Amino acid sequence: MITVSIIGSGNVAQHLIQAFSKSTEIELLQVFSRQKKNVAHLLDSNQITDDLSTLAVADLYVIAVSDAAIATVSSQLPFKNRLVVHTSGSVDLADLDDANRKGVFYPLQTFTKNKAVDFSVIPICLESEHPEDFDLLEKVAKSITNITYKLNSEQRKATHVAAVFVNNFVNHLYQIGNQICTENQISFDILKPLIQETAQKVMTLSPNEAQTGPAKRKDSATIDRHLSFLSDDNQKNIYRILTQSIQNNGQKL
Amino acid sequence: MITVSIIGSGNVAQHLIQAFSKSTEIELLQVFSRQKKNVAHLLDSNQITDDLSTLAVADLYVIAVSDAAIATVSSQLPFKNRLVVHTSGSVDLADLDDANRKGVFYPLQTFTKNKAVDFSVIPICLESEHPEDFDLLEKVAKSITNITYKLNSEQRKATHVAAVFVNNFVNHLYQIGNQICTENQISFDILKPLIQETAQKVMTLSPNEAQTGPAKRKDSATIDRHLSFLSDDNQKNIYRILTQSIQNNGQKL
Repeated sequence: MITVSIIGSGNVAQHLIQAFSKSTEIELLQVFSRQKKNVAHLLDSNQITDDLSTLAVADLYVIAVSDAAIATVSSQLPFKNRLVVHTSGSVDLADLDDANRKGVFYPLQTFTKNKAVDFSVIPICLESEHPEDFDLLEKVAKSITNITYKLNSEQRKATHVAAVFVNNFVNHLYQIGNQICTENQISFDILKPLIQETAQKVMTLSPNEAQTGPAKRKDSATIDRHLSFLSDDNQKNIYRILTQSIQNNGQKL
Repeated sequence: MITVSIIGSGNVAQHLIQAFSKSTEIELLQVFSRQKKNVAHLLDSNQITDDLSTLAVADLYVIAVSDAAIATVSSQLPFKNRLVVHTSGSVDLADLDDANRKGVFYPLQTFTKNKAVDFSVIPICLESEHPEDFDLLEKVAKSITNITYKLNSEQRKATHVAAVFVNNFVNHLYQIGNQICTENQISFDILKPLIQETAQKVMTLSPNEAQTGPAKRKDSATIDRHLSFLSDDNQKNIYRILTQSIQNNGQKL
């Protein structure tokens, strides 16, 4: 059994606790949480600590805290030369404290509290300071997912930026679609099959092959009708910029 | 049996031909195509005509041609007082020629040639000039889908604009995600589980509840890191505008 302790109690920490608890290859040793009650529903009370100095020896420590706190928390660990990883898409491996062996264990998914996720289909992006630590990270990742990637910090940052486009920004376009429906007394439900098919299409076609619509076919009559239909300046602006970007194939203007 | 003839041979026409052919309540009478070969793989040759004057009497004529051609085609029909609908999201019902009874039969989905779709989950938006024609349109729609909506031309236009946001523009953000991955030697596959979960989330949560990420949590350190990571001015511009829009909740600036 590989022993793992988790430092943190937020969304990612809670989802990792649940995933590791189910794994037959991992022994989840301890979870550090400043507020023990945050994780009390997930663990036995003797597994929870609010004191970093009580952390026992483990094969791996996973720091799952906010990006801004990673460096500080890693510098507060009261031990040396152990394997310590963070779970962030955008923080450099080098930002971890030099006292321990560094790594990254970044699950590329959007986590919502109280919404279960199937970890087995979540890509975990791995990086290690020392090549000899990579195998252990991969074993731990493979115990909860079928999909692992070896990415350096630059590639991980690229993936995180790409994830903002295909998750955060896409969801915001759903929100604008919702607003347009609501303003016209139409249920958002009407868009749901289209939203699903749009996501489904790029599972087998490239986004370039899947692109359709007035911007792609340079149908300026429809584009003009849409722009005059939109009354909100922000929505108009986004419509214009994305239409232009589609026509330039997403490349530099 | 309700008799239906289709005028047109493009993507929408072809998908409707396939759907009506399977329906037990519809008799697909004829298909008009300027190029008979476009639909020769879908129909018996005696069902295909390239001469509008040979169109037999049908309960419903479905004009499935490009938006720009709808008015002209409807004015060339050599009969009067029959029920004629178009399949466009953005063309007014009133644009159909006055010689016949007007209606709209708009399937809200993205159709790709040679990619089968499951019509039963596609919303069909219906409108009729004469209230007494609505029942027939609804029967025809219900013969191929479980989801129908009664929308007036203004609501249909709103739905079409919303569809551009959640389909065309979303797909373009997938394309930018793909570009960022490619430039950094990462497979687009890494984003696929996230793309699916993002779409899945809004099946049960509102887009507003589902929103996460640096823009939502006003994490300016991450936003700045992302902006300096992006080298493409167009991508930077889209990142800035969508980040700002998320922070303004998609509303007027």
